[in-house]
Amino acid sequence: MLKGRHLIDPMDFSVEELTQIFDFADKIISNPQKYSDLCKGKILATLFYEPSTRTRFSFEAAMLRLGGQVIGFSEPNSSSVAKGESIADTIRTIACYADITVIRHPKEGAPKLASMYTDMPVINAGDGGHQHPTQTLTDLLTIRSKLGKLKGLTIGLCGDLKFGRTVHSLIKAMSRYENNQFVLISPKELQIPDYLRKYLVENKIDFKEVERLEEVIDKLDILYMTRVQRERFFNEEDYIRLKDSYILDIEKMKQAKEKMIVLHPLPRVNEISIEVDKDPRAYYFEQAKFGMYVRMALIAKLLGVDE
Amino acid sequence: MLKGRHLIDPMDFSVEELTQIFDFADKIISNPQKYSDLCKGKILATLFYEPSTRTRFSFEAAMLRLGGQVIGFSEPNSSSVAKGESIADTIRTIACYADITVIRHPKEGAPKLASMYTDMPVINAGDGGHQHPTQTLTDLLTIRSKLGKLKGLTIGLCGDLKFGRTVHSLIKAMSRYENNQFVLISPKELQIPDYLRKYLVENKIDFKEVERLEEVIDKLDILYMTRVQRERFFNEEDYIRLKDSYILDIEKMKQAKEKMIVLHPLPRVNEISIEVDKDPRAYYFEQAKFGMYVRMALIAKLLGVDE
Amino acid sequence: MLKGRHLIDPMDFSVEELTQIFDFADKIISNPQKYSDLCKGKILATLFYEPSTRTRFSFEAAMLRLGGQVIGFSEPNSSSVAKGESIADTIRTIACYADITVIRHPKEGAPKLASMYTDMPVINAGDGGHQHPTQTLTDLLTIRSKLGKLKGLTIGLCGDLKFGRTVHSLIKAMSRYENNQFVLISPKELQIPDYLRKYLVENKIDFKEVERLEEVIDKLDILYMTRVQRERFFNEEDYIRLKDSYILDIEKMKQAKEKMIVLHPLPRVNEISIEVDKDPRAYYFEQAKFGMYVRMALIAKLLGVDE
Repeated sequence: MLKGRHLIDPMDFSVEELTQIFDFADKIISNPQKYSDLCKGKILATLFYEPSTRTRFSFEAAMLRLGGQVIGFSEPNSSSVAKGESIADTIRTIACYADITVIRHPKEGAPKLASMYTDMPVINAGDGGHQHPTQTLTDLLTIRSKLGKLKGLTIGLCGDLKFGRTVHSLIKAMSRYENNQFVLISPKELQIPDYLRKYLVENKIDFKEVERLEEVIDKLDILYMTRVQRERFFNEEDYIRLKDSYILDIEKMKQAKEKMIVLHPLPRVNEISIEVDKDPRAYYFEQAKFGMYVRMALIAKLLGVDE
Repeated sequence: MLKGRHLIDPMDFSVEELTQIFDFADKIISNPQKYSDLCKGKILATLFYEPSTRTRFSFEAAMLRLGGQVIGFSEPNSSSVAKGESIADTIRTIACYADITVIRHPKEGAPKLASMYTDMPVINAGDGGHQHPTQTLTDLLTIRSKLGKLKGLTIGLCGDLKFGRTVHSLIKAMSRYENNQFVLISPKELQIPDYLRKYLVENKIDFKEVERLEEVIDKLDILYMTRVQRERFFNEEDYIRLKDSYILDIEKMKQAKEKMIVLHPLPRVNEISIEVDKDPRAYYFEQAKFGMYVRMALIAKLLGVDE
Repeated sequence: MLKGRHLIDPMDFSVEELTQIFDFADKIISNPQKYSDLCKGKILATLFYEPSTRTRFSFEAAMLRLGGQVIGFSEPNSSSVAKGESIADTIRTIACYADITVIRHPKEGAPKLASMYTDMPVINAGDGGHQHPTQTLTDLLTIRSKLGKLKGLTIGLCGDLKFGRTVHSLIKAMSRYENNQFVLISPKELQIPDYLRKYLVENKIDFKEVERLEEVIDKLDILYMTRVQRERFFNEEDYIRLKDSYILDIEKMKQAKEKMIVLHPLPRVNEISIEVDKDPRAYYFEQAKFGMYVRMALIAKLLGVDE
């Protein structure tokens, strides 16, 4: 039962609950018109204590396409709510006006704290470098829709695997499905953190770590790209030696399977060459659309208005 | 007849007109669904030349829950309307787009000035330290709903009674109803201003002024708390001697009547201990909800769409 | 066929296409209720990389009055979309959430560039000092509505004719209709740019250039006022000699035809004396209302939802 629940951590929902959300998202995708008044009379509050236009737009469009309405702020300084008031008081006031709330906050744990003071569903839309659970839901729905399953897949994750919360959450989320294999492609300095490696080992998850995308791209069902920032390298020499390996271009795409899908949480800077955009395997813009649909399904489920 | 009127000063409406608004708010509270399309096709403009998230959210949620729509800005720098244009020109342009407008402005008198240039209803949502009439409406509706009447009450107002516009407006508004008694609890330096004391004396209103909440809390039907800022005290000695007297905690609540209600305009800083939140007499969060309902009633009345 | 088209330059649409838009605007004006659900289920994105409250409000009110919804940002710093992402990527992401997009951008050509990467209709709401096509549509609809035609008119344009993009676009747009005569009223330093004079000469358009409004006001069917900024004058002497000539007051209005209409793109500073506001020939506030109606017609046509 998802009605009245919060979503703070990507692992808050069971595999069965995720399936309910994805099944409902599929229904919406196949007949959006049918659900266009589902949230009539409901209000979503979007509290963005840190700007994130893309995520905010995705949530707002989701609520509006369900026939609901939106109130909110998009940056902290326009928010007197923020000044000298505890988040506990803020959320209890917001609960007077809204039916469901999305919070993005620079401090880890802020959405969790808010959720403890209200019965209104609270969705974490990113708290510092910590969690961003609806990005994970977006990734899973995209994979499920495009490949027809979430198990038995070889998943390449490429770029900065040390600091990228998106990647950590996706690895943990995909680990819950059978027979998935992870190929972790990064410079040595930017490999996954120890806690995550320990998690993979303890749960007997099949994974390997490599330095170069070229070595493994032909094995992958999914290639999940993220950015590698120059300043994250320990020395210039390594950067020069490796940088091209983390840029996806049409040359590398030639080595990839015909049915591989390329994903990216966006915004992309230059880690995917723009010439790849035309490749039918490039799904990162369509992924943004799945992000909206999965948020529609999530909102409807948490409000308990799904039929 | 409230249709087409402005609300600039809390005393703009007669007691009878206030009763109409509160009666309509009661109807909405008992059957919100019935009124969910009342403002369909109408647009509210929220012009916040000074940020106030709470007030803005309350108005926006009110309009959306009536089926209306909202346009607006939430801080001056995002408003080119503000630059080099008179408020008279701005309001005449806004009247081309919207059906009713809410203005919050740092300058006293700005909403009044705007209202003089348009037939569209204008609501003052706070002008400097001057007036904030919908807060007063909120307070009255909360009292009426929780205590069943607006007369024959002993009303304690505690904290900074010198600078708090909310308190001044509430005293004047409650003075219009029979047999109310005011207990004004504040440090000597922060007593009500002379004009207001003169008003009370001339109108033969029953009031007394005390320094300590503990002395009087057992007599009160309503305790209206506001903040006392340290820098408002003339000397440190007084501050140390009195500060605890202006913090409401469970010890003081033990002395209060079983049916007393605690109100606060919010945001609260530390003048009400968080342990009081669980006391059933603590109504300050519910008060915020009445704020939304009274604004729904007000908007409907000014637009003349109430049935 | 306007469905799916972009509007980047005021000359993008043929005279016939403009007529379709204006005819549809007339229908909306005469029966707004009939069209109040025309865009139900559609979302407009308003991407304002530069603040412009008036233009944003006009577009948002237009979409809401058609029953559609709006997402957007009103200044660049609240937009993470803006950071480190190409406008090509941004628009492709926005196209996942919205059905039609309005862009205001400080850089010339940005809306054009965006439109090249999407099938979603893109409307230019001002790009630097370059183009602002919906202002031109507003001006034309106002003239057509108030004077019943767009040809055979004597059109005075007064003020800074060198830098004002509004004026340049209006001259080009009105040149497409038969027998219009332009009277260009400005200081020598602020006459129309050479490319525009060349355009008028080559197309055998009837125009004359004068320095003083008083000389010609009695001949005009339309007087289009714009601001002359003091710092645009080359010398103080000229400024003192001429400044009063570019302020429209009741004295000058006495010389004008009884049916002349005064227009202004707003905001007005002091180039029209406020006493003129009461003159029935002053149409600049009503012009803002036509701006909303023409945007309603435009949105409906580009979305292909007009009946």
